[in-house]
Amino acid sequence: MEKIAYVNGSFVPHSEAKVSVFDRGFLFADGIYEVAAVLEGKLIDNASHLARLKRSVGEIQLALPETLERIEEIQKELVARNDLVNGMVYLEVTRGADKGRDFAFPKADVKPTLVMFTSEKDIINAPSAKTGINVITVPDIRWERRDIKSVALLAQVLAKQAAAAAGAGEAWMIEDGKVTEGGSSSSFIVTQDDVIVTRQNGNEILPGCTRKAVVKLAEERQLRIEERAFTIEEALAAKEAFITSASVFVQGVVAIDGKKVGGGKVGPITDRLREIYVEFAKATAV
Amino acid sequence: MEKIAYVNGSFVPHSEAKVSVFDRGFLFADGIYEVAAVLEGKLIDNASHLARLKRSVGEIQLALPETLERIEEIQKELVARNDLVNGMVYLEVTRGADKGRDFAFPKADVKPTLVMFTSEKDIINAPSAKTGINVITVPDIRWERRDIKSVALLAQVLAKQAAAAAGAGEAWMIEDGKVTEGGSSSSFIVTQDDVIVTRQNGNEILPGCTRKAVVKLAEERQLRIEERAFTIEEALAAKEAFITSASVFVQGVVAIDGKKVGGGKVGPITDRLREIYVEFAKATAV
Repeated sequence: MEKIAYVNGSFVPHSEAKVSVFDRGFLFADGIYEVAAVLEGKLIDNASHLARLKRSVGEIQLALPETLERIEEIQKELVARNDLVNGMVYLEVTRGADKGRDFAFPKADVKPTLVMFTSEKDIINAPSAKTGINVITVPDIRWERRDIKSVALLAQVLAKQAAAAAGAGEAWMIEDGKVTEGGSSSSFIVTQDDVIVTRQNGNEILPGCTRKAVVKLAEERQLRIEERAFTIEEALAAKEAFITSASVFVQGVVAIDGKKVGGGKVGPITDRLREIYVEFAKATAV
Repeated sequence: MEKIAYVNGSFVPHSEAKVSVFDRGFLFADGIYEVAAVLEGKLIDNASHLARLKRSVGEIQLALPETLERIEEIQKELVARNDLVNGMVYLEVTRGADKGRDFAFPKADVKPTLVMFTSEKDIINAPSAKTGINVITVPDIRWERRDIKSVALLAQVLAKQAAAAAGAGEAWMIEDGKVTEGGSSSSFIVTQDDVIVTRQNGNEILPGCTRKAVVKLAEERQLRIEERAFTIEEALAAKEAFITSASVFVQGVVAIDGKKVGGGKVGPITDRLREIYVEFAKATAV
């Protein structure tokens, strides 16, 4: 059966899930998105995603068309309607469709667009969780407000396409000699002293929800965390490297630009953080 | 009667002009656009717009779904179907709608999306052509490939909204102390020595079609042109300032951040360049 999407109040088959060509998401990338994982039919770390959604829309003065509570209800209904067991729920809010095209915000009677759809993915048993992934590096050419989770993702598309073309699973973006983050994930290394290092939040990176949870979980377990930028040289000299995101959780990085990291195998701290995260995810799923 | 848009081979009323929520224009801003002016039912400087379209799609490895010749045919048909006398034709090409959401490029069987619509505007007789406009300045926070005319326009939306909120007609974006360009136009000044100054092309700005035509027309008339970056201080000390774009042609700037430029009136060189451009536009319209 065809999967169901949510578009502005209606649940419709994917083939009928459409927005106006005047939608400001389509014309201007004037929209915000979130992706929440689903395990065993339940939403993972969703309060964190909704809090970030609220922050992002606030940063571009976009009013949500529904309350966060209602958005979560819709997410859950969509999961149920699609019999989704494991995967993700994508949601996007845009500044709506006006009658024409004008850069400045439309009048108040133009209602924001809310779209959601689901996709299936067995995140827990993804083969790459065991094997790890290769990453490549690319210059970070994005705008200066990467803390806003906007749909203006062309730079990330180009970065991740470069990774795919090179047979890699992610692209780490480099600015001023330091890693900012991956095309759709946060970047971590584990130093030879067992210090877990990930870049501090700021305008330069997205405040990752999975990143945030992993940092908190690690701290609770007395693991040493440093939030600071690191170089590729540090990453290559590290014991381990990994990425985090809602759609991979914690995933080892075993090579950067063709050079092995951590002996080319997923390391024990990465494995442990993945286990801890999955445990947290299942325990707090809604 | 409702206006007609073009969507992937069909001419449909605006209210039915839709794209899939999986369209990569909507999900990733993975698309390119152009806006060509229409005067007396004819397209202005369209070969220049189509050449830039070809360049932009090439820079992101996006194949056009139609030849440039066919695109122009569709533009003309849309103008005719809408009885458009004066205004603009907007066109957008995206990397199409896949079945799901994956940053990397979709397989070759996913056809790019081509959308066009028209809007009415009496560019020649716009009151602001006589009065000039105020501009504000904002930091240029865009990505590093501004030469690509992509729909990842959120920074420009925010800049132009700031201008609108301040009662100004355009926002000039500032980087490293110099003006890059306007939110949707090229920036010019005329020095006390009657030198017309506009920033040189490069990754920092969009290679404006109207900018290019104005520079060429000015050179042909032995006016002095310098292509280099300028500061706001230089602009405030200038004899004249103006902007160019397909939707305004040449438009005087009479104040920057509330400070008068050129005595607060549209200057004679601006007026002359506007006349010369309109003459060129009408003479070469197709």
